[in-house]
Amino acid sequence: MKVEGTHTRTIWLARDGWSVDVIDQTRLPHRFVTLRLTSVADAARAITDMTVRGAPLIGATAAYGLALAMRDDPGDDNLARSARMLLATRPTAINLRWVVERLRGLLEQTPADERNDVAYGEAARICDEDVAINHAIGKHGLALIEQHRQSKPSGPINILTHCNAGWLATVDWGTALAPVYMAYDAGIDVHVWVDETRPRNQGASLTAWELDQHGVPHTLVVDNVGGHLMQRGKVDFCITGTDRTTASGDVCNKIGTYLKALAARDNDVPFYVGLPGPSIDWTIDDGIAEIPIEERDPSEVTTISGLSPAGELVSIRLAPSACPAANFAFDVTPARLITSLITERGLCPATSAGLRSLYPEGGGDRCSSRQRGEVEQAGGPTRTEPPDADNRRRRPRRR
Amino acid sequence: MKVEGTHTRTIWLARDGWSVDVIDQTRLPHRFVTLRLTSVADAARAITDMTVRGAPLIGATAAYGLALAMRDDPGDDNLARSARMLLATRPTAINLRWVVERLRGLLEQTPADERNDVAYGEAARICDEDVAINHAIGKHGLALIEQHRQSKPSGPINILTHCNAGWLATVDWGTALAPVYMAYDAGIDVHVWVDETRPRNQGASLTAWELDQHGVPHTLVVDNVGGHLMQRGKVDFCITGTDRTTASGDVCNKIGTYLKALAARDNDVPFYVGLPGPSIDWTIDDGIAEIPIEERDPSEVTTISGLSPAGELVSIRLAPSACPAANFAFDVTPARLITSLITERGLCPATSAGLRSLYPEGGGDRCSSRQRGEVEQAGGPTRTEPPDADNRRRRPRRR
Repeated sequence: MKVEGTHTRTIWLARDGWSVDVIDQTRLPHRFVTLRLTSVADAARAITDMTVRGAPLIGATAAYGLALAMRDDPGDDNLARSARMLLATRPTAINLRWVVERLRGLLEQTPADERNDVAYGEAARICDEDVAINHAIGKHGLALIEQHRQSKPSGPINILTHCNAGWLATVDWGTALAPVYMAYDAGIDVHVWVDETRPRNQGASLTAWELDQHGVPHTLVVDNVGGHLMQRGKVDFCITGTDRTTASGDVCNKIGTYLKALAARDNDVPFYVGLPGPSIDWTIDDGIAEIPIEERDPSEVTTISGLSPAGELVSIRLAPSACPAANFAFDVTPARLITSLITERGLCPATSAGLRSLYPEGGGDRCSSRQRGEVEQAGGPTRTEPPDADNRRRRPRRR
Repeated sequence: MKVEGTHTRTIWLARDGWSVDVIDQTRLPHRFVTLRLTSVADAARAITDMTVRGAPLIGATAAYGLALAMRDDPGDDNLARSARMLLATRPTAINLRWVVERLRGLLEQTPADERNDVAYGEAARICDEDVAINHAIGKHGLALIEQHRQSKPSGPINILTHCNAGWLATVDWGTALAPVYMAYDAGIDVHVWVDETRPRNQGASLTAWELDQHGVPHTLVVDNVGGHLMQRGKVDFCITGTDRTTASGDVCNKIGTYLKALAARDNDVPFYVGLPGPSIDWTIDDGIAEIPIEERDPSEVTTISGLSPAGELVSIRLAPSACPAANFAFDVTPARLITSLITERGLCPATSAGLRSLYPEGGGDRCSSRQRGEVEQAGGPTRTEPPDADNRRRRPRRR
């Protein structure tokens, strides 16, 4: 999507042809800064400290992390060590795991002297696949929004979203927000209620920022507000992303998603999830029992960063000193609360049968490269060729 | 309750015998500062800018505001003007309205030259009644916590609360937290999950602070976390206060309360409300249709205050500049989601019949002074006579 009018992805190969640039998302919305990754340790750190975040972008960053590792040392030991380092960064998002497994499997079958090129090629492919998946989710979601438009012919379609599942959470387009961008581009009157999403405020920092960059009308609210809005008929539907979806349709997403899904059910508001196939974990069914929930540093709760009146980025303390705090990063929304999953292959109910109907290969080898290659590649109405689409054709050079 | 070991109420007559001191709650938890009110305009401003907040404390402050007005000018015009000024401060909490109506009714029947004394006397009485009501809520809630202890003989009783309904929200003891303090004082192993309560962070600023002052174990969490905790069996019950409860038991309380009540129902966790009789609005039944919900300045959402590393109180911006935001201060929890109301007269279901069983006089003249005088006056186990209990005996002097 665009940053001040210029098309930008969240991750791309630098002009040197081998190092990797990402948007430093910890500095948004106050500063637009990019960060250069030159080693697998850099990539791991960028994931851990949330310079990059969002399940699809975490996966893409991990892929390039392994490419950087192979450039440094293509040996088996380094491959195993680098994979472990990346897997240890964040436990909840499943994309990280399948990307690392996919690349490791591929590289283990590749002679050491070819691993560098193969890894860079595969990382670029993973990024492009993500863009295609999100674009397809956008198209299917757009059709859904057009249905809402027909049943509510006047006034804005009010959409509530939680956290950031926009283009900043992916390589481009976003999952939950791709349909919103396409609806806006198609001239549909949409308005987004943006949950601020404590503690890291991805709604206020990222979603509000990217919607503003694209010109989509939106209103920031604190996380407590969604139930009230739905009670008063001010939300036409909710849409979120997912960090991991089980084979039965339970959705693990940013902490607080579950509360919004409960409010949606209580008020007969549809609750949709933008679900890229690679975020499905076919190995588990029960999200509450089986998905590990990351606990992050309590200081993310007791302190917060923002822009001082002097224009400096500062961190301030919100709670009494030494106040005990807990910081759970995700929760699980049971499938029964979800109206539809919007995938790159179309919509389905959040059930085992629904997911199997779209992913008959599902439980097999979990979305192999070939299977994901089947993703619809239709071009968006206002879509231009991303300037870095030819990344994979650049030949990374060893140092 | 105690501040660094010294018993303190939230509002009291100053040593001069006529001006009124309050704790400046906008400076907590970082600074303990008191503010002196010397006019009805001071009192109105303290309510509007949330120097004082919490339905019972807003009522008490309004009572002293009218006393200050009568000291200044006991004429009918000033009485009417001052009542209007106070009623315009905040629309949702009902205590404000009944206090102003009670005092105005009393003063209109009082000769002008006696209004000063009568107003101060009635304001002191309203404060003492609030303390007695909360103490009685505490005793009934303690019995409930003892039942939870019996059904869960080991480990802490985990209690989730939203916003601040502790002693800082009242004159003393609190509504939701009075039972918690009494349970702690009785040696019951209690632990409180404290919702931070965006946007004004009354949980982080006030509830965590006052629990810490009393030594009650607690953990601060962001508002998004409660559902996850309940899903994982980490909450034994929820308890909140109320700003206005309808005759049928709908509870209007701090924004986000409704979401926690939904999560409680979804996980079979009891949801209690500490309800002082004066917070019942007998004139309405349907909370969603009939209670006005205050909308506050959006800057409370886009900016936040805290303590800088240099130890200064600073305000920082969280959202993109000019980000549109909405700031609804309360929501309504339908009676069907509430397990029990804990009143000063005992527990009842959140139904018309339940409330009528405890308040048979209910819809009449709405909790007159005499009726609230029936409140249980039992002393708490560790309770000492508040040093300002004789406020009403001090004779306010005219300037």
